[in-house]
Amino acid sequence: MPDAETQRKLIEILRILSESNGEVGARKIAEELNRRGYNLGERATRYHLRMLDERGFTKKHGYLGRVITPLGEEELKHALVTDRLGFISTRIEDYEFRTTFDPSANTGDAVVNICYINKADCDKALEVLKQVVEAGYAISPRLKVVDEGQEILENDVPEGQVAIATFCSITIDGVLLKRGIPVSLKYGGIIRVRDNKAERFTDIIDYRGTSINPMNVFVSRKMTSVLKVLETGSGNALANVREIPINAREKALGIIEELRGAEVYGIFSACESVRPLLGVPVEPGTCGIASYSGINPFAALAEMGIKTRIIPLAAVMNSKELKRLD
Amino acid sequence: MPDAETQRKLIEILRILSESNGEVGARKIAEELNRRGYNLGERATRYHLRMLDERGFTKKHGYLGRVITPLGEEELKHALVTDRLGFISTRIEDYEFRTTFDPSANTGDAVVNICYINKADCDKALEVLKQVVEAGYAISPRLKVVDEGQEILENDVPEGQVAIATFCSITIDGVLLKRGIPVSLKYGGIIRVRDNKAERFTDIIDYRGTSINPMNVFVSRKMTSVLKVLETGSGNALANVREIPINAREKALGIIEELRGAEVYGIFSACESVRPLLGVPVEPGTCGIASYSGINPFAALAEMGIKTRIIPLAAVMNSKELKRLD
Repeated sequence: MPDAETQRKLIEILRILSESNGEVGARKIAEELNRRGYNLGERATRYHLRMLDERGFTKKHGYLGRVITPLGEEELKHALVTDRLGFISTRIEDYEFRTTFDPSANTGDAVVNICYINKADCDKALEVLKQVVEAGYAISPRLKVVDEGQEILENDVPEGQVAIATFCSITIDGVLLKRGIPVSLKYGGIIRVRDNKAERFTDIIDYRGTSINPMNVFVSRKMTSVLKVLETGSGNALANVREIPINAREKALGIIEELRGAEVYGIFSACESVRPLLGVPVEPGTCGIASYSGINPFAALAEMGIKTRIIPLAAVMNSKELKRLD
Repeated sequence: MPDAETQRKLIEILRILSESNGEVGARKIAEELNRRGYNLGERATRYHLRMLDERGFTKKHGYLGRVITPLGEEELKHALVTDRLGFISTRIEDYEFRTTFDPSANTGDAVVNICYINKADCDKALEVLKQVVEAGYAISPRLKVVDEGQEILENDVPEGQVAIATFCSITIDGVLLKRGIPVSLKYGGIIRVRDNKAERFTDIIDYRGTSINPMNVFVSRKMTSVLKVLETGSGNALANVREIPINAREKALGIIEELRGAEVYGIFSACESVRPLLGVPVEPGTCGIASYSGINPFAALAEMGIKTRIIPLAAVMNSKELKRLD
């Protein structure tokens, strides 16, 4: 039995084949998987296709193309959208589990978001990315920039493109979890910033109630104004809110200090005993921790009209690979 | 004390004023309210501004402009995003309550969605709208088209534009409620259609967990392919799912028959005792009713590249005003 994450990828490949007319090649499948938020390269996709072939759910057709079999269609029918409905929150827990980042030693694997842009836009993009992260509207100022042809995780960066990785805020949840604090990421939202201070949430989406990542929703609906925050100190940025038991407050505050020491400092509200927290409900017995999103730098690029392909919660990566830009 | 809907509009106006620099006129506020999903005309906006003035939350500034007062800012701080988080599901219940549509007599007020388009696009738009509704991918083939300068509800249609109203699927919920059936609209989603039959949901968003209408999310993320459904019989359309107690099944089926008689027939899965329903979870003790969305005709326009401003769940309207296109 493959693990849950592999299972979801297999189902998604079956979906892609089922929704197409005729055979589809591994490269096209990998591209479509990417578009749907799965960071899977061509090689890895071929590996998954072989698993599907072995089970009789797909078969080769033509030169390297694949089609879905009647058995594959049957399998798909039994796959629930709930696999995907739970998707965002389930995927979050999966990545929390996989985080090994240790802020005290500043080592281990962190969760990252990835954004692909055209190489031609790279210079002006990096300039803005740097401004956003240095102003503190991402999780950390540490980034990784990967040129065309080079590898980022399982993928080769396509020709003419550049990939950028930022710390994902789920890294914070992973660290809290690894130190024994039960943490529940609740809402992704739009935070109104005024005079460089987080003022209140104006929109939120519950991570447990959506099969689409809230961050992608807000960016594609053009609800951010990160550039305006940089220019005037006021505007709308991406953020999220998590809850921990109120008894874990002291321990969490210590960990948040350690995170700051490791340059992970996107948290703007840490365990305050206010309810609601910046307009967002917090359960009794818990306190909230709100942080900016690692997607804000990419949102700023989209606001500039730069073509972006944003994959939140893309992978775990050795944190040493992420460095401050000069 | 104003009712909850008025209260939300007042808060939203305060938000708009708070987020702007300097004074804003009633027309600009009305436009911004529209963009945020409130169907409020310039006149109605002025009326609401007077209410805010009276309470000291806003004051006149310059020639017909308004600014927010310190007292207004204070009021806003206490307003919860939860007013808006609950927004979509709260607003749904509000409209269910206001529906007086009686399918047996084919009279009363129905809930409608509204879409504004440029007048120049009107001819080709109406042709496609007609195809979508006649093929059964909306709630009803009955529409209302309102020309520039004429009034639709509280609004004058702006110069150079045309407004189109369609039956909103919440009308169904309103009718069930008025006949004493407790109904709970659960998910908005994307339904995969194959060979002109609803096959399974591929994405869903919980109405209780979002401050943004799921239908707007799916359209702005270009996740529909209604035109492809018309052309080939297969593609992705907007739909939603509601639950009723399983004991109310027989009564609901009778009402659904009556609705069909009144040309309200967008339901594609009525109280089947399958669980999950087309991939969507249904609570024990309940059965699901799934229907296409009245937004599908507008989604088709957006797919064609026609500029649309879509307001789901816009208002209630005398159902007699909605007629089949010739």
